Amino acid sequence: MVVVMSPDATEEDVAAVVARVEAVGGEANVSKGLTRTIIGLVGDIESFHHLNLRTLRGVADVHRISDPYKLVSRQHHPERSTVWVGTGRQVPIGPETFTFIAGPCAVETAGQTLEAAQMAQAAGATLLRGGAFKPRTSPYAFQGLGVQGLEILAGVREATGMPIVTEVVDARDVTVVAEHADMLQVGTRNMANFGLLQAVGEAGKPVLLKRGMTATIEEWLMAAEYIARRGNLDVVLCERGIRTFEPATRNTLDISAVPVVQATSHLPVIVDPSHAAGRKDLVVPLSRAAMGVGADGVIVDVHPDPESALCDGPQALLGTELRELASAVRRLPPVLGRVDASERVREG
Amino acid sequence: MVVVMSPDATEEDVAAVVARVEAVGGEANVSKGLTRTIIGLVGDIESFHHLNLRTLRGVADVHRISDPYKLVSRQHHPERSTVWVGTGRQVPIGPETFTFIAGPCAVETAGQTLEAAQMAQAAGATLLRGGAFKPRTSPYAFQGLGVQGLEILAGVREATGMPIVTEVVDARDVTVVAEHADMLQVGTRNMANFGLLQAVGEAGKPVLLKRGMTATIEEWLMAAEYIARRGNLDVVLCERGIRTFEPATRNTLDISAVPVVQATSHLPVIVDPSHAAGRKDLVVPLSRAAMGVGADGVIVDVHPDPESALCDGPQALLGTELRELASAVRRLPPVLGRVDASERVREG
Amino acid sequence: MVVVMSPDATEEDVAAVVARVEAVGGEANVSKGLTRTIIGLVGDIESFHHLNLRTLRGVADVHRISDPYKLVSRQHHPERSTVWVGTGRQVPIGPETFTFIAGPCAVETAGQTLEAAQMAQAAGATLLRGGAFKPRTSPYAFQGLGVQGLEILAGVREATGMPIVTEVVDARDVTVVAEHADMLQVGTRNMANFGLLQAVGEAGKPVLLKRGMTATIEEWLMAAEYIARRGNLDVVLCERGIRTFEPATRNTLDISAVPVVQATSHLPVIVDPSHAAGRKDLVVPLSRAAMGVGADGVIVDVHPDPESALCDGPQALLGTELRELASAVRRLPPVLGRVDASERVREG
Amino acid sequence: MVVVMSPDATEEDVAAVVARVEAVGGEANVSKGLTRTIIGLVGDIESFHHLNLRTLRGVADVHRISDPYKLVSRQHHPERSTVWVGTGRQVPIGPETFTFIAGPCAVETAGQTLEAAQMAQAAGATLLRGGAFKPRTSPYAFQGLGVQGLEILAGVREATGMPIVTEVVDARDVTVVAEHADMLQVGTRNMANFGLLQAVGEAGKPVLLKRGMTATIEEWLMAAEYIARRGNLDVVLCERGIRTFEPATRNTLDISAVPVVQATSHLPVIVDPSHAAGRKDLVVPLSRAAMGVGADGVIVDVHPDPESALCDGPQALLGTELRELASAVRRLPPVLGRVDASERVREG
Repeated sequence: MVVVMSPDATEEDVAAVVARVEAVGGEANVSKGLTRTIIGLVGDIESFHHLNLRTLRGVADVHRISDPYKLVSRQHHPERSTVWVGTGRQVPIGPETFTFIAGPCAVETAGQTLEAAQMAQAAGATLLRGGAFKPRTSPYAFQGLGVQGLEILAGVREATGMPIVTEVVDARDVTVVAEHADMLQVGTRNMANFGLLQAVGEAGKPVLLKRGMTATIEEWLMAAEYIARRGNLDVVLCERGIRTFEPATRNTLDISAVPVVQATSHLPVIVDPSHAAGRKDLVVPLSRAAMGVGADGVIVDVHPDPESALCDGPQALLGTELRELASAVRRLPPVLGRVDASERVREG
Repeated sequence: MVVVMSPDATEEDVAAVVARVEAVGGEANVSKGLTRTIIGLVGDIESFHHLNLRTLRGVADVHRISDPYKLVSRQHHPERSTVWVGTGRQVPIGPETFTFIAGPCAVETAGQTLEAAQMAQAAGATLLRGGAFKPRTSPYAFQGLGVQGLEILAGVREATGMPIVTEVVDARDVTVVAEHADMLQVGTRNMANFGLLQAVGEAGKPVLLKRGMTATIEEWLMAAEYIARRGNLDVVLCERGIRTFEPATRNTLDISAVPVVQATSHLPVIVDPSHAAGRKDLVVPLSRAAMGVGADGVIVDVHPDPESALCDGPQALLGTELRELASAVRRLPPVLGRVDASERVREG
Repeated sequence: MVVVMSPDATEEDVAAVVARVEAVGGEANVSKGLTRTIIGLVGDIESFHHLNLRTLRGVADVHRISDPYKLVSRQHHPERSTVWVGTGRQVPIGPETFTFIAGPCAVETAGQTLEAAQMAQAAGATLLRGGAFKPRTSPYAFQGLGVQGLEILAGVREATGMPIVTEVVDARDVTVVAEHADMLQVGTRNMANFGLLQAVGEAGKPVLLKRGMTATIEEWLMAAEYIARRGNLDVVLCERGIRTFEPATRNTLDISAVPVVQATSHLPVIVDPSHAAGRKDLVVPLSRAAMGVGADGVIVDVHPDPESALCDGPQALLGTELRELASAVRRLPPVLGRVDASERVREG
Repeated sequence: MVVVMSPDATEEDVAAVVARVEAVGGEANVSKGLTRTIIGLVGDIESFHHLNLRTLRGVADVHRISDPYKLVSRQHHPERSTVWVGTGRQVPIGPETFTFIAGPCAVETAGQTLEAAQMAQAAGATLLRGGAFKPRTSPYAFQGLGVQGLEILAGVREATGMPIVTEVVDARDVTVVAEHADMLQVGTRNMANFGLLQAVGEAGKPVLLKRGMTATIEEWLMAAEYIARRGNLDVVLCERGIRTFEPATRNTLDISAVPVVQATSHLPVIVDPSHAAGRKDLVVPLSRAAMGVGADGVIVDVHPDPESALCDGPQALLGTELRELASAVRRLPPVLGRVDASERVREG
C-alpha cells in the first residue's frame, strides 16, 4: 500500500500515519517529494485496511498495489486450471481445449429442449445449457419452469449424453439445482449476490460465473474468490458484455477481458456472444472473435423455433448461422493450438 | 408498440406481422413510408410480447411505447405517495416533507451506535440508519454483526425514539430483519435480486430500495414493481450514484433521476450522497443539491469516530460538516415549500 | 510518482529503475514489501515522463501522485478567482455571486434574438448566450448564421446592455468571433481540440469552457491549462452532463463535478442544465440543484417560440418555467451566502 | 418517423400534429391504442425535423426510424467498398483482403522511423503509420515534429515503398499533410471536429477516421458522412476502443462495432488494438480477435526501442510479440477467406 499525503500535510501528519502503521506491526517507508510526501507500507495488508488511513489529517489518497484476491490469483498458482464438467462423461474447460456450449435460453417443453440439444450436438457442442429458473427484469415476464425444467434437462442429458449447465437464482434453490445439474450458472444480475455465491461454493458442483454487466474485472474475480473460499475452485468465468453508452448492441462485449483474466487468474474463461449482442447476426462473428482472442470456449443460444421462444428469441441461432458457427469451431481453434473439448472428454 | 420493417421487407413480410398480431386479438395499423413501413399495434401488450415479432423476416425493430411498470406508475395514481415509517411514532417520507436519515454505515458496538444516533438526532435526523448485514465486495472484509447488530439497533431505537432503517441482503434473513427493523433496505448490489425483492414485498414493512449502481431508472422502477406486486406499495426509492467513467468520485450521483422518477412514479425518492461520492467533503454540497432538486429526503453516514470505523470511514460526517448539513436541512427545504419531517410525525 | 514492481521482479530490475531515475537527477526511495517492491520518486516529474519506466522489465505500474495541471490548480493559487465579462459594463462570475446566463440556443433572426434576450433579462439574466456557429452531429442540420449571427448578437447587446457569450467552433474563426463577443465559448465537442484551445487562449477575451461529454474532470482541467498557458487565465468551466448508460436524459448532469472542481482549481464553475437534460421539465429542478451544490452560475436555453426553434427547441424554457427559475434565482443563492451577479456589476 | 402521444393527449393535440405534418406535404397515419395514440409520418424526413414536433402539447416522444446517414449507408450501396491507398503502388483496404498497418506512434528521428518501418515491413505490414502532429491531453507533453516529421515519413516511404498514413489535427494543416501523406488520419479526439472533417473531405486523399472514444457508432458514421458530403468516399473507419468503467485497459475495444458497421455501411473498417488496450501484452490477442470478427485490417504501434519512445512506449510491440502477430496475420485471415493485402497491391 502507498499513502499519498496532500501538499499541505505537516510533519506531524506524516508521523501520525507512520505511528498507526507501526502500531499494527507494519513498516512505513517515507519518501519526501518536492510537493508531496508518499509513504510505502510493508506488512500485512489486511491489518492496514482497519487503520482507516484515508480518514487521517493530511492524507490525500491511499493506493492498494497488490491484487485483493488470493485463491483465484495466478500469482501463487501460475498454471492455468482446467475444470471438468459432468459425472461419468466429463468435459474439460481449460487452456488446451475449446469448449462449445449451446442450448435454449429457457427450457419450455421436453420436446423443444431435446430438439435444441440435438441441434447443438450436431453443430459440435459438448455441453448443454438451458434455463429452468430465469431472472427477469419484469415481474410480468416468463420466470421459467423451475424444478420441472430441471427434470426435463436431466431427461435430455440421459438422451444425448451432454452434461447440463443451468442457472440458479436463489440461494434457497441451490440444493435442488445441484441435484439435477452438472454445472451451476450464476447469472450476471447475481454476480454480487454474496449469499448465493457462498451457497454455490458449498454445493460440490462446478460453477459458471457470469460477469456482472457492470462489474469491473477485479470485482468479478472477487466474486470468484467468494466461491473459492467455500472450498470450490472449479469456477469458470464467462464474459457476457458490459453496459456502456453504445445502443447498437444490448451490451458491449469486452473481448479484452479474456486475456486480462488469463494474465491474472488461473481460472478458465469463456465468452457468451448471444447475451452480449442481443442480435443473432452478431453471434457468429463474435464467437470467432472469442476464438481469436484465446477464450477457452463459447456459450450460445440455440432454439429450434426462435419465433415461438419464450425468452430471448431474437438472439437464438438456427440453420445457416449455426452451420457457420460449427464450421468456425472446427477450423479456428486448431490454428491457434487448441483441440476441441470433445477430443479430451474423459470418463470420471 | 410499433414495429419498424426493414427497407427490403416485402408485402408478405408485412402481412405476416399483421396476421400474427390479429391472431391474438390485436389491431395492426400499417403506415407505408418512402423507405420503410411501420406498423402500429393496438391491444394487450402482454400478449404481443409472446409473439417474438423481432424474429420475423423483414422486421428491423420493435419499439415499446408505454411504460412497462404499472403499480408504481404515476399514470393511474397521479398523486405522489407518502410512506410512513415506524410503529407508534411514525415518520413520513413524501412530497410535503424533507426527511433526514442518518447513522453509521455499520453497527459495530452498542456504544458506537448510540453515540452515532445521538449525533444524528442532534443534527435533526428523524430516522436512524445502520447496517447489521453488510454486502461486501471482498470475502475478507467485515460482514456485519448480523442478528446481534439488529438487537443493538432495537436498543438504540428504545433509547432515542428513532425508527430504524437497516439493510437485508439475503431472502433467508428477511423475517428476522423485519422483526427488528421499521424499514427494510435493499442495497444497490441486490436491486436485481428478484427473490429478495419478492421476500421484502411480503414482509409487511416499508422498503427503502436503492438504485443499482448500474441500473437504468426504468429497471429500478421495475424492481419496485416486483415489491409492489407482492402487495407492498410502501416503497421509497433511493438514488445513490451510478457507475461512470469519472474517477474523481466513487460513483456519479445522478441528481436528474430525482425529478425523472417524480414525473413517472408516485413513490417517494431520496438521495444518498455519502455512498455516491465516497468522499466526506462532498456530502454537504450534494445534500444541498438534493434539497434543491426536490428530493424527499437524504440518508447520510455519520460516525462518532470515523478513524476507527469498520466500514466506509472516509465518507462519514462529523463535527463541522454535520453542523453545516444540519443548518442546510433547517434552511433550504422551507424556501422550496417543504417542512421538516419531524413536524409531521404522527402517532400510529 | 510511485513505481510498483511486479511480484517476480528481480533485484536487477529494481536497480535498473533506480539507475534511470538517478540518471536524470531524481531520487528513488525503495520500499521492499512482502510480495512487491515499490519505489517512490522525488524530483522533476516532467523529466520522469520521458523515462518510459512502464516499459522496463519488472515494472507493473507507475502511479502519478500529483496533479498534472499547474496554472489552473488551486495549489499555488488558493483563492478562488472571479472572471469579469464585458467591456464597459462588466458582469462577474465567481465565488461570491450567482450569475444567470440565458438566451437562445441558436441565433435565427434579429427579432427572435432580441425577444429571447428581453425574456432572459426580465427573468434576471445578466449575460446573453446565443449561437452563431453551431457544431452539429449531422451535416444536414442547421449550422448557424455565422458572422451575420454575430452582428445580430452585437445589436442585441447594444439594445439590452447584456454582454454576449457565443461559441466558436473553428480556430480560423476565433478572430472574428472575438471582435464581436464578450466571452468565447468552447463547446463540449471541442474540449480536446487543442488548436482551438490555443487560439482562444490568445484571443484576449474570457473563455467559457464546456466539459467534454466524455471527459474526466482531470482532462477538462488540462484543457483549461492549454488556454491558461497561452496567457489567458480568464476561464470559466461549465459542467453540461456526461455520457452514461442512462437513457432517460440526454446526458447525466455530473453535479458532483462542481465541488470537485472547486476543491482542485481556482477557476469559477457553472452548470448548463438545458443541454445536460435535453428536457425542458428538468431545467428548473436541475438549476436549483446547481444553486444548492454551490455552482457560480447557470446557463439556460430560452426561446420566445420553441415550436419554431431551429435548434434544441424541446429544451428551451418559456412562460411558467422561466418564472419559476427566476424565482429560484432570487431566493436560493442568498440563503447560501451569495448575491446575484447583477448587484456586483462594475463599470470597466 | 413515429410520434408517440402521451396518455392524456386530447383529440385536438393529435389533430395539431397531423395538421403540422400535412402543412409540409407529409402524410400522418394515426393509430389509436388503448392507452396511447401513435402517428406514423410518411414523407421527407428533413422537412419533419424543422417541425419541432416534440415541443407540441401532448407529444410524449418522437422516434426516428431510418438511419440519418446516406452516402456512407449500405442501403443504396449494398456492395462493401475497397479503398486504395498510395500513388504508384496502391494497397487495398476492403472486404477481400486483410491489411496490416504498423509503425511508430510518433516520428522522432529519421533513424527511428526507418528502423520501425523495416520492422513493420519484415513482419508483413504493407502500410506505414507514424505521427508527425500529435494531439496530447497535456500541453506539457511532446506535440510531434510537425512538417519535419512529414518529411521524414516521405523519406522512409522512398526507402521502403510503403505508403504513409499520418494524423492531421488542425484544419489549417490539411494541405501540407496531404502533400506528404498517402492517407490522412483523423484521430479519436477530432472525430467531431466538423471543420477538420470538411477540410479532409476536400483534400483528395483517402481518410482513416478513428472512432471518437465516446462516440456511438451512429455518430461515427455521421462523421464519415461529413467527409463524404465533400466528395470524398475513400473513408476507412477505425475502431480504437471506447470509454467505459473498466480500468484494466485504457479503453474497451468494442469488437462488435466491426460487424455492426459492416451491416450498416459499405465503408471498410479496421481495428487499432494498441490504443484501445494501452498494454503491449494485449495487442496480439486483440489483433487475433479483430481477424476473427472479420475486420478489414489492423493498425498497431511498433517501435525499435520502446524504452526511449516519446509517446505511448508501453504499448509498442517488438521482438517476440511482433513475430507472434506476424504469424497470426499469415495464418488466420486465409482460414476466414481473406488474402493478405500485399497479394492484391496494384500499380496506380
